[in-house]
Amino acid sequence: MTDPIPPPTADDVLAAAARIAGHAHVTPVLRARTLDAAAGCSLHFKAEHLQRAGAFKFRGACNAVGSLDAEAARRGVVTHSSGNHGAALALAAASRGIGCHVVAPEGAVATKLAAIASYGAVLHRCEPTLAAREALCERLRVQTGATLVHPYIDRNVIAGQGTAALELLQTAGPLDVLVVPVGGGGLAAGTALAIAHAAPATRLVLAEPRGADDTLRSLQAGRRVEDLVPDTVCDGLRGLLGLPNFGILHRHRSGGAPVEVIAVDDADTIAAMRRIAVHTKQLVEPSSAIALAAVLANRSRFSGLRVGIVLSGGNVDPERLPWQS
Amino acid sequence: MTDPIPPPTADDVLAAAARIAGHAHVTPVLRARTLDAAAGCSLHFKAEHLQRAGAFKFRGACNAVGSLDAEAARRGVVTHSSGNHGAALALAAASRGIGCHVVAPEGAVATKLAAIASYGAVLHRCEPTLAAREALCERLRVQTGATLVHPYIDRNVIAGQGTAALELLQTAGPLDVLVVPVGGGGLAAGTALAIAHAAPATRLVLAEPRGADDTLRSLQAGRRVEDLVPDTVCDGLRGLLGLPNFGILHRHRSGGAPVEVIAVDDADTIAAMRRIAVHTKQLVEPSSAIALAAVLANRSRFSGLRVGIVLSGGNVDPERLPWQS
Repeated sequence: MTDPIPPPTADDVLAAAARIAGHAHVTPVLRARTLDAAAGCSLHFKAEHLQRAGAFKFRGACNAVGSLDAEAARRGVVTHSSGNHGAALALAAASRGIGCHVVAPEGAVATKLAAIASYGAVLHRCEPTLAAREALCERLRVQTGATLVHPYIDRNVIAGQGTAALELLQTAGPLDVLVVPVGGGGLAAGTALAIAHAAPATRLVLAEPRGADDTLRSLQAGRRVEDLVPDTVCDGLRGLLGLPNFGILHRHRSGGAPVEVIAVDDADTIAAMRRIAVHTKQLVEPSSAIALAAVLANRSRFSGLRVGIVLSGGNVDPERLPWQS
Repeated sequence: MTDPIPPPTADDVLAAAARIAGHAHVTPVLRARTLDAAAGCSLHFKAEHLQRAGAFKFRGACNAVGSLDAEAARRGVVTHSSGNHGAALALAAASRGIGCHVVAPEGAVATKLAAIASYGAVLHRCEPTLAAREALCERLRVQTGATLVHPYIDRNVIAGQGTAALELLQTAGPLDVLVVPVGGGGLAAGTALAIAHAAPATRLVLAEPRGADDTLRSLQAGRRVEDLVPDTVCDGLRGLLGLPNFGILHRHRSGGAPVEVIAVDDADTIAAMRRIAVHTKQLVEPSSAIALAAVLANRSRFSGLRVGIVLSGGNVDPERLPWQS
């Protein structure tokens, strides 16, 4: 974690697309007339909750595992993750027949932990702090010789996440705006790279929980804000924006505009998740629904546009849907 | 309701497919490795919960409305329905620009009633008995001159429902078995006609709630059992098997075998609905999940087979998922 990480480029996204082809699903793009009418624009949902292991995270994990040479692969991989990246890396490792260690904090979503274990990874629990996660992860890395695959600042991971936007643009055709959720920023940065290559006129909008709005504040300040104490129902978006991702997003311009961040209230996110369930029959995570919530809370800014949305994952616990608590 | 109804044939299903093309969605066929592993067979889910108005019912309603001549169409349509057929007919009528009256019993699922109203139909409430529904429906028919489109014994409705199986067989290729839920039997009878035409070797299995098992008893007895007092969580399957549907199912043979009925406990249906939510991220009704439950409760009978399942609808109230009550 002390090495400077060379940020990935659009070429890395294209290489990732080639590397994960046949391993990751080409997920469908869903439409819903009722939601179009409610939003006043045409919505194109990239259904990454239908990706393998139930989230876009498989793209990055698959690309990272596929990039290992034979000798590194033999020693396996290690990561820390509260959920989807851990499950994705476990599945990617199992698919290549190599070992995987996942450090997960206490308090993570139970169904996500069950998924990690079901794919055959060794699960290590720790205190729910970033310091505890990184320390245990480093110890495991040194002990086993496994390659660290960081959930959102690994360059292969970032590049892999960008492939979702590539496919969406290919299927849906030209989009005025692409809205993706932002937490650690792997998807956001990968999407920026994909847009720069494939659709330089498409504006990039990030949806961020108001209770974890470090990306909004970082891009406004022009420097990375690090005093995040996340308070949001979006369990996948509690991470601090990664350093290379900040750089990519800070530099990005498309459609002549910088990256825009919309802070979203949890109540709006939960309402959007419920609407998606009722009108599309799709069960997605709050961390996914936040992108639709950002549009619905700002109808005038999206009016009449062709809007792409990445539904990032669907690993919710059906016993604990957030509108019921 | 006093006229004898000439039962539809496979030709009527083919005519329905042509009539609804471009109006009804060609829904996707979903696969899920985890569920295949759990069931010990390969499952092909026809995603009719993604059909317009959220259920296969739109196929039959659209075919019935599309079959009206201009003069009959001008007088509109009327039906009684506790939910999905009512919403489907309302949408089909609205799409043709004609009037629609729906008689719905007290106690119907709130989201289904809201859908009926949202498509612009006039909603009439009545006591939750078949007699009350039919009486009010007949009064409206006489008053308005509207054509009655019965939810499951109308020949155009039965023929329309069969088109889901046609498409499934076309997309999934040869199937050993096709499992569909049975209530009033419109889908079951339409599927039997479709199989007889398109895949005479494919066995037909019906999944029926144990608490509403009149079809099982009727086919065993060789005569229509009418003493049904339904007690099941499957709100779409509480109807008595319709007379023409009994005839079609009683006569049907495919793969050398008669129609088989599997009675399913509600607890198994609810567990299957939860599994579908977790492993496919799809929100389907108990009345749909019952088909997977029938397979999972009888693994040895389906072992190694290619099994088609019609996921019939997805209009659940996300506030009241059955595993939470």
